[in-house]
Amino acid sequence: MALIVHKYGGTSMGSTERIRNVAKRVAKWARAGHQMVVVPSAMSGETNRLLGLAKELAPAKPTGAYSRELDMLAATGEQASSALLAIALQTEGMESVSYAGWQVPIRTDSAYTKARIESIDDARVRADLDAGRVVIVTGFQGIDDQGHITTLGRGGSDTSAVAVAAAMKADECLIFTDVDGVYTTDPRVVPEARRLQTVSFEEMLEMASLGSKVLQIRSVEFAGKYRVPLRVLSSFTPWDIDINEEAKSGTLITFEEDEQMEQAIVSGIAFSREEAKISVLGVPDKPGIAYQILGAVADANIEVDVIIQNISKDGKTDFSFTVNRSEFARAVDLLKDKVLPGLGAQEIKGDPKICKVSIVGIGMRSHVGIASQMFRCLSEEGINIQMISTSEIKTSVVIDEKYMELAVRALHKTFDLDQPGDGKSAQS
Amino acid sequence: MALIVHKYGGTSMGSTERIRNVAKRVAKWARAGHQMVVVPSAMSGETNRLLGLAKELAPAKPTGAYSRELDMLAATGEQASSALLAIALQTEGMESVSYAGWQVPIRTDSAYTKARIESIDDARVRADLDAGRVVIVTGFQGIDDQGHITTLGRGGSDTSAVAVAAAMKADECLIFTDVDGVYTTDPRVVPEARRLQTVSFEEMLEMASLGSKVLQIRSVEFAGKYRVPLRVLSSFTPWDIDINEEAKSGTLITFEEDEQMEQAIVSGIAFSREEAKISVLGVPDKPGIAYQILGAVADANIEVDVIIQNISKDGKTDFSFTVNRSEFARAVDLLKDKVLPGLGAQEIKGDPKICKVSIVGIGMRSHVGIASQMFRCLSEEGINIQMISTSEIKTSVVIDEKYMELAVRALHKTFDLDQPGDGKSAQS
Repeated sequence: MALIVHKYGGTSMGSTERIRNVAKRVAKWARAGHQMVVVPSAMSGETNRLLGLAKELAPAKPTGAYSRELDMLAATGEQASSALLAIALQTEGMESVSYAGWQVPIRTDSAYTKARIESIDDARVRADLDAGRVVIVTGFQGIDDQGHITTLGRGGSDTSAVAVAAAMKADECLIFTDVDGVYTTDPRVVPEARRLQTVSFEEMLEMASLGSKVLQIRSVEFAGKYRVPLRVLSSFTPWDIDINEEAKSGTLITFEEDEQMEQAIVSGIAFSREEAKISVLGVPDKPGIAYQILGAVADANIEVDVIIQNISKDGKTDFSFTVNRSEFARAVDLLKDKVLPGLGAQEIKGDPKICKVSIVGIGMRSHVGIASQMFRCLSEEGINIQMISTSEIKTSVVIDEKYMELAVRALHKTFDLDQPGDGKSAQS
Repeated sequence: MALIVHKYGGTSMGSTERIRNVAKRVAKWARAGHQMVVVPSAMSGETNRLLGLAKELAPAKPTGAYSRELDMLAATGEQASSALLAIALQTEGMESVSYAGWQVPIRTDSAYTKARIESIDDARVRADLDAGRVVIVTGFQGIDDQGHITTLGRGGSDTSAVAVAAAMKADECLIFTDVDGVYTTDPRVVPEARRLQTVSFEEMLEMASLGSKVLQIRSVEFAGKYRVPLRVLSSFTPWDIDINEEAKSGTLITFEEDEQMEQAIVSGIAFSREEAKISVLGVPDKPGIAYQILGAVADANIEVDVIIQNISKDGKTDFSFTVNRSEFARAVDLLKDKVLPGLGAQEIKGDPKICKVSIVGIGMRSHVGIASQMFRCLSEEGINIQMISTSEIKTSVVIDEKYMELAVRALHKTFDLDQPGDGKSAQS
């Protein structure tokens, strides 16, 4: 008997018919002898509907008090879907009870609309499990130390599930979603993309931060911090699929670096079109320059991703970085108005039409020449590399966005990701 | 400066446009210097939508655990509308905060779907009022001593509002609804029906229990127990109506028996078509018979209203009572199967096509002959009275339902309820 956490996304909870299927699937796991905690998202569309109503009424200058009410409002979506799932489980003959975040309680800080989980008291949930009940815990929400409802931000239900699994020392946390696992890259771009049977926590973290949408990055961080075995799998298989088969399906995010894993040098290709590049040209090469430029950007709450400073020439250097494309115009204006005048730099150049392509693999740690293999591949395709950024297990390049698909496909082939048989990717 | 509680029904909260109007109205009251607590219902249709989803998933044999989840589910409707109203108030430039029942907290017993309020802690709400905020408190819901969400049953938001007003010793509780007050009778039946400027708490209680739908009976009981001045008024006047005019509009439910009130002998006519009559004929007239019949009915959780036992003749008597029409078939079956065999009675006769018409007036206490005036009126219209039931301030008759409108109109005229100038009814 194991303690298992299931998480179901909004699409899986999208109608009473689908909720009934989730209940049947959960009941199957419970009947197999497992203690079950389930974390559902709101029914698909519900959070948008609620926030849409709020937007129609929103004050001209939103304040913290407004954010507090947004959380009060949005949290109802998961409370309703959780109660409905408990009812569906009762219909399946399972004893079941649902708890809102404040009832568990799941304690968070007070950063409304993007709160962080601080602690989870598992006593209540454990008592119900011991009494033979399936426990439903609302995703996405918690309570701060003033007793106000908070939400964790978009995708927060993944984080809730992992946090509950961590607090309860669950044997595994299964994230049921509309894809059947983690792929070598997005199959919509590369039809030959293959599902990975396992991926290391560090690779998953890089993939999530590099643009893979399969898991919310904070949930992966949480899983890593508390070493929660995490599996991503499909909720669109028939609910009565054999449980042993289901338990091995999807992709397991693992912490054990076994031999198999060492074999894969590059596990996946991530990409993102959501960035824009800004270059400050002819910057005097003296201490404090990076802070002068990026400090102003950070103060404006604009997140910076790749940062490159070229070697200096004639006491001048070029300084480039990328920001989220939605912040591009604001960042450029800010630099022109506030930073450039005091900097003695020559020019600001911006390019929103770029993309970032990354190869990720824990094997890169112990293998040399992987990055240059990437550069050669891109060069052979005639793709100019504008920026390079590396970490221990990934190499990212910034290129013109029009080459994105071409680059991803070429790299996927170069690193043999379309070939089965490395012992890591799934056979099916 | 007064402490005022406003309650808005689902129709008044039915769209963002209407919520905006509620916010403007509340803001007007707050700007006039009042401390404001507002209790909104869920947006119209929302509670039905949620319970409809539950019904699609409901277990074949609903249990207490199911009711608990229904409350968890239904309570989200008021939480959402409360947050939206707080946002709309912020948009009007008012500081505002919303609280779910558990956050106040409003403590109830654990009778899910029909819980009763046990206590309200007003410290949190009062602190916000003192800080200059408009406080929104969700209607319809509370928390039991196990920390589970409970709801008060249909119309429970009226009760929430009155209970909050009682706990906070509010100066007045204004129930904004889709009618503009309490009428001498239903204007759809009697076009000459007039709005009452005031009605006594006891009359209101009788009217509510006799079928008037204006206020939920438990809210009236609460108002009576804690002497909360209660006003029923329209939410469909323009929001910017003069506040002094608005404060005097609608109908005030009052506890002071002034001279004016004594002048009105009959204040209103109530009626209900929701009853059915059952007669047990030829019952041996001996001790314990009433208990033998009604005990079985009560054990089956069927509520009995009017009860009549005729004088006995030849040691036999006839025993009649009314039940809710929806329980009629079940009650008749129960009596035939379980009670009749051991009773020595001759026959069970049932008639679902009856109605109850009542005259209500606090003046009946000190005036004789009012009931006989009622009977004469009905007799002149050729209406046969099947059962009579009286209390200190009301007389009810059970008649064939086809005469209902005729009876109500005739009584309305007989007691001069269509004539203004008794100092009690509104001039407008």
